[in-house]
Amino acid sequence: MGQNVVEVGVPKFQLLPACEDDHEGVIVDMKEPMDPNVFQAMLKASLSQWKLEGKKGAWIKLPIGLANLVEIAVKEGFWYHHAEPQYLMLAYWIPDTLSAIPANATHQVRIGAIVMNDKRELLVVREKIGRYWGTGIWKIPTGILEEGEDIFTGATREVKEETGVSNHCINTEFVDVIAFRQKHRYFFGKSDLIFLCMLQPLSFDIHKQDSEIEEAQWMPLEEYADQPVVENHCIFKHIKDICLAKIERGNAGWTPLPITSLFNDQISYLYMEEDLKP
Amino acid sequence: MGQNVVEVGVPKFQLLPACEDDHEGVIVDMKEPMDPNVFQAMLKASLSQWKLEGKKGAWIKLPIGLANLVEIAVKEGFWYHHAEPQYLMLAYWIPDTLSAIPANATHQVRIGAIVMNDKRELLVVREKIGRYWGTGIWKIPTGILEEGEDIFTGATREVKEETGVSNHCINTEFVDVIAFRQKHRYFFGKSDLIFLCMLQPLSFDIHKQDSEIEEAQWMPLEEYADQPVVENHCIFKHIKDICLAKIERGNAGWTPLPITSLFNDQISYLYMEEDLKP
Repeated sequence: MGQNVVEVGVPKFQLLPACEDDHEGVIVDMKEPMDPNVFQAMLKASLSQWKLEGKKGAWIKLPIGLANLVEIAVKEGFWYHHAEPQYLMLAYWIPDTLSAIPANATHQVRIGAIVMNDKRELLVVREKIGRYWGTGIWKIPTGILEEGEDIFTGATREVKEETGVSNHCINTEFVDVIAFRQKHRYFFGKSDLIFLCMLQPLSFDIHKQDSEIEEAQWMPLEEYADQPVVENHCIFKHIKDICLAKIERGNAGWTPLPITSLFNDQISYLYMEEDLKP
Repeated sequence: MGQNVVEVGVPKFQLLPACEDDHEGVIVDMKEPMDPNVFQAMLKASLSQWKLEGKKGAWIKLPIGLANLVEIAVKEGFWYHHAEPQYLMLAYWIPDTLSAIPANATHQVRIGAIVMNDKRELLVVREKIGRYWGTGIWKIPTGILEEGEDIFTGATREVKEETGVSNHCINTEFVDVIAFRQKHRYFFGKSDLIFLCMLQPLSFDIHKQDSEIEEAQWMPLEEYADQPVVENHCIFKHIKDICLAKIERGNAGWTPLPITSLFNDQISYLYMEEDLKP
C-alpha cells in the first residue's frame, strides 16, 4: 500500500485531506505518494476553499519519501517552517494580514556539569572534538540535551558518557542548577542555553569515553583555576567562583518541582529556589 | 546572473564547490540555479571524492528558490537537518560510523512577565488567541523570544506589546529571573522553556494591543489568587507564591552578567544570584 499512487484525472474540486488546528488553521499530513501534477491541482483547489472558509495558517507535512512534492508546494507559495530528519513542514499564511505563524525552535539546550569530590577536586575533561580540541584546556563536562530530555536527567547522563563505559563511569546525583548562560548565533544562526548544574559524585573511578573525550580526571580546584584561560575568561572564572561559593558558603541553586499541566496530565518541571516552594 | 544555469555536459569529475567546517566535514552552500541532472552528477562525484578524503559530515544548504534540487539530494542519501523560511539544510554522514551530526534546535524559549505595582496589583491579560482563549482566565503576559533576543530584552518587549501601542503602553525595567520551567512535546514535538521574569513598572496606563490580547488590567493579587485555576494548577499557584515572597520577604532571583567568549568578542549573559558575582 506504500505505493498507492493516486490516479491523474481527479475531479476538479477534490481537496487535500486536512485537519483543523487550534488557531483557525489547517494541517495536511501527507503520507502516501501522489503524482506531482495531481498534488498541484488539489493544492490549488484546497487553497481556494480554505480562503473561502476564512482559514488562517495552512501547513503541509511532507515525509522525506515525498521530497518530489516540495517544489510544488513552494511554487504555490508555501515556505519552509521547520524540518526534522524524516520530514519537512511547510507553511502558508492565507489572510491578507501579517502572518501569525509561530517561529521554529530557536535554542539548543546544553548542560555543564560541575562535579566536585570532598577533596576540593573538580571533574574535568579535555575534548577530542569541537571548539576546544587542541587547546589543551581542561573544562567541565558539557553536552547537548537529547530531544525530550529533562535538564536534571541530561546532566547525569553526560557525566556518565564522558567519564566511562557501562559500569565503569562516574555516577552522580543531580543537586541543583546554579546558573545559566544564553548565547546567540551559536550554530546555524540559532541560540544556545547552557545550564550549569551541580552534581554529587556517587562513584569516583574514571574510564574515559574514547570517541568523545581525550582525557578526564579529578583536578584540584586550584590547578583548574591556575589555567591561563580561567584567569582571562569569565565563564571559566565563574565556574571556579561558583565552586568556592558552594564549598565555603554552601550557596544553593534552583531545584526542579514537578507540576501538572492545565490542559492534560503532562508533568513538567519548575526550577526555582527552595525558599519559594510550598 | 540569477539565472546563470550551469550547462549540461560538465566534465566527469567536476565537484560541487564546498567549504570545510570545524568538524572534518564539508558544506555546500548552493546559491545559483542548476540543472537537476548536472547537480546529481556533481553530487555523486563530490561524495566519492569526500569519502576518499576522509570527510565526515556533508551539508547542503538549498535556498527555497532551489526547491527542485531537494529530491536529488534525498535520492543521494541526504536527510533533512533543519529548515528556516528561506532555506533547507540537508545532511549526510559519510563514514561507516555512528553519525556525530548535531541535532537541530530543540527548544522554543518564552518569557512570562511578573509585573506588580506598589498597590499589590499584578498585571494580567486575557488572550484572544492560543490555548487560553475562551477560558476566561486572567494570566501574566507571556511571549516567545525573537531570534537572537536576550531574555531580559524579550520580557520588557512583550509587556509593551501586550499592553498598548506606541507611547501608550506599560514600560518596565527588568529586575531578575525568578524561576524557569522546562516542558516537552510542546509544539511539533519540540520542548519549551519559559523564564519567569520580575519586572518593575515605569508607567501604569494600559491601552491593550487589539490583535493579540483581549483585555489587560491591574488586578489585586488576592483576586488573581481567587481564580479557580490558581487554586488547582501549580504554575498559577506558584506565580502567586512568588509574588508574595517578593513582597513579603524580598526574595531575589538571578540577574544577567555580561561575559565575553573565549573564541571571539561576542558578549553573552550568565544569569545567577548576585551573591555569586565578583
